[in-house]
Amino acid sequence: MNQEELIERITREVLSKLRNVPLSGDGKGDGGPRLREEGRPALAPADLAPYIDHTLLKPDACVSMVEKLCEEAVQYRFFSVCINPYWVSYCARKLRGTGVKVCTVAGFPLGASESRSKAFEARNAIENGADEIDMVINVGALRSKDMKVVEEDLRAVKRACRSTTVTKAIIEAFLLSDEEKVSISELIKKAGYDFVKTSTGFAGGGATAHDIALIRRTVGPKMGIKAAGGIRSYEDARIMVQSGATRLGTSSSVKIVNG
Amino acid sequence: MNQEELIERITREVLSKLRNVPLSGDGKGDGGPRLREEGRPALAPADLAPYIDHTLLKPDACVSMVEKLCEEAVQYRFFSVCINPYWVSYCARKLRGTGVKVCTVAGFPLGASESRSKAFEARNAIENGADEIDMVINVGALRSKDMKVVEEDLRAVKRACRSTTVTKAIIEAFLLSDEEKVSISELIKKAGYDFVKTSTGFAGGGATAHDIALIRRTVGPKMGIKAAGGIRSYEDARIMVQSGATRLGTSSSVKIVNG
Repeated sequence: MNQEELIERITREVLSKLRNVPLSGDGKGDGGPRLREEGRPALAPADLAPYIDHTLLKPDACVSMVEKLCEEAVQYRFFSVCINPYWVSYCARKLRGTGVKVCTVAGFPLGASESRSKAFEARNAIENGADEIDMVINVGALRSKDMKVVEEDLRAVKRACRSTTVTKAIIEAFLLSDEEKVSISELIKKAGYDFVKTSTGFAGGGATAHDIALIRRTVGPKMGIKAAGGIRSYEDARIMVQSGATRLGTSSSVKIVNG
Repeated sequence: MNQEELIERITREVLSKLRNVPLSGDGKGDGGPRLREEGRPALAPADLAPYIDHTLLKPDACVSMVEKLCEEAVQYRFFSVCINPYWVSYCARKLRGTGVKVCTVAGFPLGASESRSKAFEARNAIENGADEIDMVINVGALRSKDMKVVEEDLRAVKRACRSTTVTKAIIEAFLLSDEEKVSISELIKKAGYDFVKTSTGFAGGGATAHDIALIRRTVGPKMGIKAAGGIRSYEDARIMVQSGATRLGTSSSVKIVNG
């Protein structure tokens, strides 16, 4: 077991024992609801619904699966559905008037498209009814230490969005060193994004309590953090929120809120 | 073991025993070199180089890895390098005058982007120096039996390409029934593409001898077929070519041509 795995495992273990302690942060984040537990009962499964982007990004998702996703989102009052761009128009029509938001992706999941393609995709999705855009950063440029490219890429997609669009940048934490996670989170904040998102769910690793806590320390208490990838149970979800996540991307949403 | 796995395993076993037999097809395919072995020695490892799109599509590929890819392609005379769109300009500059082509992807790997985003990405890549475009079909629309959408998607990307651009459509065979593989291959041929490509390499399964043979029977002897996903050895590569593939997408290219 390496050091990072050890830290992660201890963090999870400790957090899993702490059901009723106050957490850091002022609870007034712009990026969504924050957990404050002083004098309140522990976060119950059903309390997690407003944190959840109910997600279906599989390439072979067919219309009946997307329809069911929307129906579940309405029934359980999830924050949004998160689907691939092709499905945005369908979901926007289906969810009109329900209060459930439409979230989609740009440059997903590799992040290695050109900036203008990512921007085009985002603008298009917004025209079709997307409320939130989860873009993937240029991981290869980051690993090449080409920070100018990474920053310009972030800014190009941000410019393509409306002022009302909620913007998230996916860092694919599994592929990065802690140092890289910190520097990219700072850059995302500087570029005016609403959320740092941990993972696409397509690159192997997913969200970890260690990463959420590291990003939270980096971006401060008010920015949104979306934990995504590998969140399959109520316990997974609760630990992410208690570590500092303000949004959860998961396909196991119904299972999570049913405890 | 299910029926398809059984057929696949027997096919591989039989083909691995057949080193010197003539294969079906007239060897005059438009989509690239075809194997004709009558009276000639078996396909040697080095003979496979002109079949190979030397591939690096990992999200965290950094500039030194892409540079090495180009150098290997020149050294071993691979047909092309296949990289994500962000790297097209770099590779086009690097490979100018070497005869090695630049191949990239559109709507990759999920195929669930909107048609106009895929078309935009393809057009952009060609302007940046891409010779070949591997687009991913709308798998979700195909699985929803929305063939009009699938066809229009194919045509939109085709229209965005130049007449000199080599076009390939990736069907992600692993996610499809044999019936779907046949109908999509017919559609791709009808839409004027140069190649049917089996897989992205990101959806679990890769190329199989069964699928190559099935696609070959469907599209006839002259169309190109690119086998991609899971081709890691000379034996894998040889079996694909002997089953009817005219191009190979692989990251194990150097190992393959060294036998």
